[in-house]
Amino acid sequence: MNPQEDRKRVIIEGVHPEIDGGRYPIKRTAGETVEVEADIFADSHDALSAIVLYRREKESSWTEAPMVFLVNDRWRGSFAVNEIGRYAYTLEAWVDHFRTWQRDLVKKLDAGQDVSVDLLGGAELVRDAISRTPGTDAKRMEERANALASDQGLNDKVRQALDEELTTLMARYPDRRFATRYEQELMVVVDRTKARYSAWYEMFPRSCADEAGRKGSFKDCEARLPYIAKMGFDVLYLPPIHPIGSTHRKGKNNVPKAGPDDPGSPWAIGSKEGGHKAVHPQLGRLEDFRDLVSRAGEQGIEVALDIAFQCAPDHPYVKEHPEWFRKRPDGTIQYAENPPKKYQDIYPIHFETENWQELWEELRSVFLFWIDQGIRIFRVDNPHTKSFSFWEWVIGELKRDYPEVIFLAEAFTRPKVMYRLAKLGFTQSYTYFAWRNTKQEITQYFTELYRGEVREFFRSNVWPNTPDILTEYLQMGGRAAFMARLVLAATLGANYGIYGPAFELCENRPREFGSEEYLNSEKYEIKRWDLTHPDSLKDLIARVNRIRRENPALQSDWSIRFHPIDNEQLICYSKNTEDFSNIVLVVVNLDPHHTHAGWLELPISDWGLEPLRPYQVHDLLSDDRYLWHGSRNYVEINPQVVPAHIFRLRRRIRTERDFDYYM
Amino acid sequence: MNPQEDRKRVIIEGVHPEIDGGRYPIKRTAGETVEVEADIFADSHDALSAIVLYRREKESSWTEAPMVFLVNDRWRGSFAVNEIGRYAYTLEAWVDHFRTWQRDLVKKLDAGQDVSVDLLGGAELVRDAISRTPGTDAKRMEERANALASDQGLNDKVRQALDEELTTLMARYPDRRFATRYEQELMVVVDRTKARYSAWYEMFPRSCADEAGRKGSFKDCEARLPYIAKMGFDVLYLPPIHPIGSTHRKGKNNVPKAGPDDPGSPWAIGSKEGGHKAVHPQLGRLEDFRDLVSRAGEQGIEVALDIAFQCAPDHPYVKEHPEWFRKRPDGTIQYAENPPKKYQDIYPIHFETENWQELWEELRSVFLFWIDQGIRIFRVDNPHTKSFSFWEWVIGELKRDYPEVIFLAEAFTRPKVMYRLAKLGFTQSYTYFAWRNTKQEITQYFTELYRGEVREFFRSNVWPNTPDILTEYLQMGGRAAFMARLVLAATLGANYGIYGPAFELCENRPREFGSEEYLNSEKYEIKRWDLTHPDSLKDLIARVNRIRRENPALQSDWSIRFHPIDNEQLICYSKNTEDFSNIVLVVVNLDPHHTHAGWLELPISDWGLEPLRPYQVHDLLSDDRYLWHGSRNYVEINPQVVPAHIFRLRRRIRTERDFDYYM
Repeated sequence: MNPQEDRKRVIIEGVHPEIDGGRYPIKRTAGETVEVEADIFADSHDALSAIVLYRREKESSWTEAPMVFLVNDRWRGSFAVNEIGRYAYTLEAWVDHFRTWQRDLVKKLDAGQDVSVDLLGGAELVRDAISRTPGTDAKRMEERANALASDQGLNDKVRQALDEELTTLMARYPDRRFATRYEQELMVVVDRTKARYSAWYEMFPRSCADEAGRKGSFKDCEARLPYIAKMGFDVLYLPPIHPIGSTHRKGKNNVPKAGPDDPGSPWAIGSKEGGHKAVHPQLGRLEDFRDLVSRAGEQGIEVALDIAFQCAPDHPYVKEHPEWFRKRPDGTIQYAENPPKKYQDIYPIHFETENWQELWEELRSVFLFWIDQGIRIFRVDNPHTKSFSFWEWVIGELKRDYPEVIFLAEAFTRPKVMYRLAKLGFTQSYTYFAWRNTKQEITQYFTELYRGEVREFFRSNVWPNTPDILTEYLQMGGRAAFMARLVLAATLGANYGIYGPAFELCENRPREFGSEEYLNSEKYEIKRWDLTHPDSLKDLIARVNRIRRENPALQSDWSIRFHPIDNEQLICYSKNTEDFSNIVLVVVNLDPHHTHAGWLELPISDWGLEPLRPYQVHDLLSDDRYLWHGSRNYVEINPQVVPAHIFRLRRRIRTERDFDYYM
Repeated sequence: MNPQEDRKRVIIEGVHPEIDGGRYPIKRTAGETVEVEADIFADSHDALSAIVLYRREKESSWTEAPMVFLVNDRWRGSFAVNEIGRYAYTLEAWVDHFRTWQRDLVKKLDAGQDVSVDLLGGAELVRDAISRTPGTDAKRMEERANALASDQGLNDKVRQALDEELTTLMARYPDRRFATRYEQELMVVVDRTKARYSAWYEMFPRSCADEAGRKGSFKDCEARLPYIAKMGFDVLYLPPIHPIGSTHRKGKNNVPKAGPDDPGSPWAIGSKEGGHKAVHPQLGRLEDFRDLVSRAGEQGIEVALDIAFQCAPDHPYVKEHPEWFRKRPDGTIQYAENPPKKYQDIYPIHFETENWQELWEELRSVFLFWIDQGIRIFRVDNPHTKSFSFWEWVIGELKRDYPEVIFLAEAFTRPKVMYRLAKLGFTQSYTYFAWRNTKQEITQYFTELYRGEVREFFRSNVWPNTPDILTEYLQMGGRAAFMARLVLAATLGANYGIYGPAFELCENRPREFGSEEYLNSEKYEIKRWDLTHPDSLKDLIARVNRIRRENPALQSDWSIRFHPIDNEQLICYSKNTEDFSNIVLVVVNLDPHHTHAGWLELPISDWGLEPLRPYQVHDLLSDDRYLWHGSRNYVEINPQVVPAHIFRLRRRIRTERDFDYYM
């Protein structure tokens, strides 16, 4: 027997949200709410009270928020997380003898039973509470207890037993001696808003020079900033900016042998000029990089860096720490391979090294170095090929001091591994979006991501292309396909990004048929992009990003709902703010070749629209307005114009006092 | 950093079965198998190995069983639990460098690459394993390592690298230094078979006398045993057999005041003649009870006792331990109430007493007393109105010494409370079956119980009636309704029971319209039942119980599948043994008034039947045989004859050498 535990009668179980029994935190952004549900019950039929307890992790005292009973022993409470950093939460519940007594008293009165002895019982309960109660409240209780035990008229005593004042007083000083505290303290990681809502633009700095033949530098990037800002992006993500190795350097189109002018892949990091803490001399000096970061900031753009923990054979680590690399039996260092493929220009770091602690410290110092340069967003290359424990440790360490840092996991791997990395601490994650092209694929995948359990820890960042991924859909669908995928990415994903200028210029030539690699990929050569090309999507992108800024419904993901539409080539979904003051409805024609039409079915009553009154849908892309009514409405989309509608729903105003008939 | 943990690369999560993060055991019966699944993966792309570890709880060393990879990082393994008592199980997995090396070697060979350096790497791995390897195996490894590193021909070395012997040797001595052991040790409670498969008969001993007017005794119960055995029941459950209080004794039909000859409710336990460890003097002596238990055992019937922890006002506890009861402000003891209902003949035990430890010990001693009299099955009355902690403690204590004891929870309360009691240790539980009458209700409920997560800890015991429950379906449907509910209970529930002789005699008069209480309920008076009534269902019951005995498919619940049938009044489901050697198909007409017919749809290919060949279904109730073919077949059931088929499927034999055309 356990005197501490055995007298607690209340059970708390089935707590949601809770990841893996409390092993991992859930995620929120500052200002959001954590809604907690649990099954709470006791033996017998006594009334219960339950609360949510929460605190910032570094504080020691809990704040309490009430929980309310829903149905079937389910309770719900909530609290807001307004500061970035970590919060803890847990639950407490207890048998509430006073509320039980009040409830039974009412039942007995309703049945016309004599309650004089019961009133004495109530007086006892109130008297017991006095010892837990300070000052004037105690005095008020004393008076009530005396009244209940007095020879006043029964009606008067009943009134005093049930009135608001006593109920409130007794609720304020409950007997929590045998309260059940939920055994877990659950955690919330609260990130800044950009973790939930961001628009990324990936760009190779070395291709930023305006004149042909010249190699781009940080200064050229600066010159490019207005172009990016005008499109409305707020994160500029740069592939690795470090010195590039020359040993086994790859040539154009990834051929094994580089020509004398081939610049090499930025992911083959390290040369005698330095490694992960150095900048490529052709890009400029560290100072220039810091300038770029500042200039970008002035234009509302935050620079994100790529962290790729792997080394070119010329990386200083290879000489300084040969034990951080695997050795082959012939004494050479093991290059990266995925048999039968070989990547001789890259040495993977050997996380099973006996010298792992020193390795981890050094890798952390890489992050810290760039944090010192003003970087707060890191896109992490292939985290799934490095130790899980390392990520949990390093992200935990860094976020303890810099809770504003955002880590994007670039792990295109099996779903459970991707989810695991998110649990371990990555703020955002790439998704399979690039390969989800049909209505059914998109519906199923984003329902899993946004409506399922994973949304508590896995935040999508949705990309239609990357330097490694030119999908067949884009290859075959031409400009209309790029437009459709842009609208999908930017409206499905509150976080989304494109790899440009390849994207806005609709670059769609693969290295070979059946490959997802770009022909003449920017990974292996310096490109010059014609940003003024008339077919550029830059204006459409600017418009879409403006729509995102002006419509808070598109700034988070959880509200998504897919709606039926009777054409397999048309997909329809909505997002809304919690109060439904902003409702955005997206319809996309997934067929880049043909016009499609269909009837869609909307949950208008959930949106507070009346079935018989017309309402307006305003296409924010074309600026066209349509008068719809009822749940069933018609759309027709020609992909050669714009393959999508992004409607904002405008309700009918219920007054006719002015001419602003639609609000 | 944590040198113990941080170098472990394998993740084990999503383990199934696991109840509430391992807080509660799963349940099995002796001879069954525990199939364990988990998500197991590591960073990168190395090959993994995984095992299930299991042991009897009291043993210290683990036995290992291999796990196999399924799909999507899911692995499965299993182990048999052959002894009653408790088992522990957990999982372990590790990166298997040797299997990774073999796999990559094959890929490189397939691509025509030079593998001479790789073979040296293999030699190193084999050499490393020698230190973990005893005796002759070490010698064999040494030879292999030398061969791989030798200047033998490449083909010969490759053959030696990949052959069965080396693979087996290396699998036998893996490097588990950095193996991940799953953090939980999960528990299995293994019960005897009767926990899974039993047929209960509830009977009031005091109503067993054959002559009118005489009060029944244990001796009369003995005389009734052949009747019960002939019907095929193997558990005889007796309502409380203790002295009954006289203060506030209830009269016939639960009227507040008993007449001088009214015997009182057996659940108003305790008088000056004793309490929970005494027998009612009119039933006989304790010795007679023990005789009854022995005689029953000789006829294959185990006696189950009712444990109802509550007291009549005359119970010795009330004087000896007034602190075990709640006091009202007027000094009297609080009787049971569920406002506005009052049960003045019963004092509930006050589990919040300060003297709770002594109380718990005493209540445990009640179980031990009856265990000493040879009882191993307890039906526990209203466990949901007593402390959850008490049940977990007392069942744990008792099963430690008497793992063969079966506890049936009589908790007709909210689903989460019922499931909680099952988690805490109850072996079997009553269900909502009595109130599940339509096809949809039955399908949904038993799918939840038998196909959902709860089956791991919640074992149904399915009753169509009890002394408290005479459902409207039985009241209104007459004899056909009783037959239908019998077949449903006995085939849906591997554990089932009836309250007799009321059930077999189709007693269906309620105390009043809208009540589920029996008119002239046996709870408050002594009855004499006419067991020879021609309408008695005793022969049907005997046949159904024989069918259960002869068809192992009906002796467990997990295999249930409901099949479509195009008539809402007909329900169709099957159970089968794991190897499909025994398949039983049940069709019940739920309408007790009219004949119904319909076409049913069977998954015959899952059952190994060929779509174009006929097969036989043998109705074990009527002994009729039908030749069916294909998945769609016709049934027609007249409820006035028997409202059900219990078909055994008989396959066509594939030889014509003898005349036993159907096996």
